[in-house]
This record gives sequence, structure tokens and C-alpha cells, in this order.
Amino acid sequence: MDLVITYDVNTTTPEGQRRLRDVAKICEGYGYRVQQSVFEVVCRNTDKVRLIAALATTIDPAHDSVRIYRLPTSALDTVEHLGKPRHRAPRDPLIL
Amino acid sequence: MDLVITYDVNTTTPEGQRRLRDVAKICEGYGYRVQQSVFEVVCRNTDKVRLIAALATTIDPAHDSVRIYRLPTSALDTVEHLGKPRHRAPRDPLIL
Repeated sequence: MDLVITYDVNTTTPEGQRRLRDVAKICEGYGYRVQQSVFEVVCRNTDKVRLIAALATTIDPAHDSVRIYRLPTSALDTVEHLGKPRHRAPRDPLIL
Repeated sequence: MDLVITYDVNTTTPEGQRRLRDVAKICEGYGYRVQQSVFEVVCRNTDKVRLIAALATTIDPAHDSVRIYRLPTSALDTVEHLGKPRHRAPRDPLIL
């Protein structure tokens, strides 16, 4: 399935800055960063469950926000964009 | 149609800070902010064309990035999220 993950992490505290780094690191394990706080992810449902579980235990739900958008099949291949393009195609193999 | 608009604007210059404000203001005319640089938009195709045209003339394509994700019909009604919820439902009337 094709997903877009967006997040806002409150970085006014050192703990928040740590959470921001941790959220990015988790997302890097599942997809490609296309903007500062936006990842495009191609994965199976089991990976999605794992990804969401990892994010849920990392963020502070009172201060942070993560949104998970499920796109139609293969929609990540034809995302409309303006300005700087992404660096990798969403279905490129992940290098971890 | 249901859209998610995400953007990164390079704010290292005063011009970039102005572009960031302008991009946010344009998006506010079409949908609801759900994160710092993420808007959810419910609109017709003609509005989408207008929105993209306005954004295209506002950003600096060498330094900024806007991505437009089209979701399945009504998908904005059931977005998965963690942490802080959005303040408004995506189909609430816009107050301009």
C-alpha cells in the first residue's frame, strides 16, 4: 500500500528534539523523506501496523501529531508537485 | 475531491519567510491546516486548478517544495492519526 506520513513534533524542549529525531529515524526505516516532516512509504499492512506502533510509543500525544494518509494503489508514482522534486522513486529499494 | 497539501518553504531569507506566509494564506482559502505545513482540502477540480496555479506563482521552485496528494473519495473523514487531533472536520464550511 502507498502511504504518506506527516508529523509535527513540538521541539521547544530537549525531549521534543529527541522525539523529532526518533520519529524521523523510524520513518526512514519504512520509506523516503520527501519534505522536512513528510515521508512517502510503500509497504504491506503488517509493516504499517509496526510503523504506527513504533511512532505511537515515541511521540508525546499531548504535544505531537502524526497523520497517516492511505493513498490509492500506486498513487505515489504520480504525485503532483511544485518546486523541488523528491530524490528517489517511492518504490526504490530501501537502503538501511 | 479530497486532497492533502504539504509544503516545505526555505525560510533562511526574508523573502522565504514571506513566501511561507503567502503559501499558508493561499491554503487557508481552500482547506484546513492540520499540521504546521500540512493542509487538508475538500474541493472541486476547478478549485484544485486554481489552488495549484496560485501556489505555483508564489513559491520559489529552486528552494521550495509543494506536494499535492489526492486521496480516495471521502478519505479525509477517516484519517489515521496519533497525538493531537485536528480542530475541524474536513467538510466543515470554510470561514474566510
